[in-house]
Amino acid sequence: MDMSPAVEVVEVGPRDGLQNEIVVLPTARKVELVNRAVEAGVRRVEAVSFVHPRRVPQMADAEAVMAALPRRDDVRYIGLVLNERGLDRALAAGVDEVNVVVVASDTFGRRNQGTTTDEGVAVWSRIAGRAREAGLRAGVTIAAAFGCPFEGTVPAERISEVAARVAEAGPSEIALADTIGVGVPTQVTDRLARVRAVAPGVPLRCHFHNTRNTGYANAVAALTAGVTTLDASVGGIGGCPFAPAATGNIATEDLTYLLDGMGVASGLSSEALARLGTWVGEQLGKPVPALLGRAGPFPG
Amino acid sequence: MDMSPAVEVVEVGPRDGLQNEIVVLPTARKVELVNRAVEAGVRRVEAVSFVHPRRVPQMADAEAVMAALPRRDDVRYIGLVLNERGLDRALAAGVDEVNVVVVASDTFGRRNQGTTTDEGVAVWSRIAGRAREAGLRAGVTIAAAFGCPFEGTVPAERISEVAARVAEAGPSEIALADTIGVGVPTQVTDRLARVRAVAPGVPLRCHFHNTRNTGYANAVAALTAGVTTLDASVGGIGGCPFAPAATGNIATEDLTYLLDGMGVASGLSSEALARLGTWVGEQLGKPVPALLGRAGPFPG
Repeated sequence: MDMSPAVEVVEVGPRDGLQNEIVVLPTARKVELVNRAVEAGVRRVEAVSFVHPRRVPQMADAEAVMAALPRRDDVRYIGLVLNERGLDRALAAGVDEVNVVVVASDTFGRRNQGTTTDEGVAVWSRIAGRAREAGLRAGVTIAAAFGCPFEGTVPAERISEVAARVAEAGPSEIALADTIGVGVPTQVTDRLARVRAVAPGVPLRCHFHNTRNTGYANAVAALTAGVTTLDASVGGIGGCPFAPAATGNIATEDLTYLLDGMGVASGLSSEALARLGTWVGEQLGKPVPALLGRAGPFPG
Repeated sequence: MDMSPAVEVVEVGPRDGLQNEIVVLPTARKVELVNRAVEAGVRRVEAVSFVHPRRVPQMADAEAVMAALPRRDDVRYIGLVLNERGLDRALAAGVDEVNVVVVASDTFGRRNQGTTTDEGVAVWSRIAGRAREAGLRAGVTIAAAFGCPFEGTVPAERISEVAARVAEAGPSEIALADTIGVGVPTQVTDRLARVRAVAPGVPLRCHFHNTRNTGYANAVAALTAGVTTLDASVGGIGGCPFAPAATGNIATEDLTYLLDGMGVASGLSSEALARLGTWVGEQLGKPVPALLGRAGPFPG
């Protein structure tokens, strides 16, 4: 079982994790979440999204969160943007990089952000151009890269095609997102190979949800396929307001346990993250899907 | 990603799944559970254990369950036994095969069944001999094959040694059990190779718990290592009365979803199993850990 000796875990809890939660956390709590994640070793955080506050109320304080986050040379904050208005806000807020979502299925794209895939690619290209002019790193996420809650399985050929088109604008990274947690390891291997073929040299990142208990197996498949950047959310919280029954991201603490056991360095403390996951559950008033905090210490 | 085109899933819910539950199901409900699993495609069931009713009250009606189960030529019922008294009961009850547990760590072995590993191997050898005389298939499970709740990580060398010794008695199958859900895929690959090396030709089976969210990734690792028999419990219920914080087996319905997605035939219906998992939760008065029933149908 061959994989990189080290991986980067992007903490997406503050954005993808929280966005679907009805309990809106005060800005100070969000900042505390990011700070504690950084203390636990996280060095790249999807901190906020610049979307319309009526669409995603949890993200209404994105500017305030960004203003309150301590800046460190070794920590990068990502802001998710879906349109040029979002980019303007991200630039003003001083994010370290922007991530743009292009949805691989038209139906979900329209519901999620009001664009078909074609329109999403066009928006991404304009944002990528403007980000480049501004000297800002811009990556792109292909969402619903395995399945769409409305259209079903998204064909692998569709992912190749979308990846080829988003690659034209020169992304700093392409992420494949299993937004609704329907993918399986063989698909991960296959789709990553296809994306590599049409976007050679572009760093790849994977984003898995554990909706059907395939998320961690998919993460291992991505690692064995050579991916070295994985998204996770502390506590395993998450979902998508515009995808029915979508549930949490893979949990940062459980992913860290898995990586530690396989001897893959991440720089993260699974113990600190498990405590943070429990804290997140307390803030949200419900148990989190992560299991490490419940399993308790193992004297291994 | 190479794996067998077909696997056998052993439904262990009626035994390993239920044994740790405080709610004792009536015999008729246990029989219904088995019947519905068989209707969903299961062809091999760990139906009961023949242990002391004071130690595991849930299994006190093992004989009654076996007597009530419909017999079919294409369905095999396993009875778990820990000593010769258990074998006597299993023989009288007419099981199709017995499974004997040898614990790879002394501390857990003493707590679980009152024997050290050495003593467990000796018990297994006697049972294997008597089962052979009786014309009964006898397999052996190496429990705590990745970690012990009291001693921590169990060294891989220890597993090779135990496997070599249990192989001497001619098991029909050797199962590696991650009783407390601490293993990771690289360990699965390594330990399976070690067991194969010391027990060439003996069919292998794997038994994973999802205590720390590594269970399904471990299942995929076992499949890619050539294992074609996996344990799972419908609903993902389970645990061990003698291992603190041990939680559920991998869920049969979620495993089936994973196998279906990878094109691995199991003969199981994930939809029927997801409904059965929900039913199990209703019987136990709590939600089950399986996720497929919660995620709902995917139009994939």
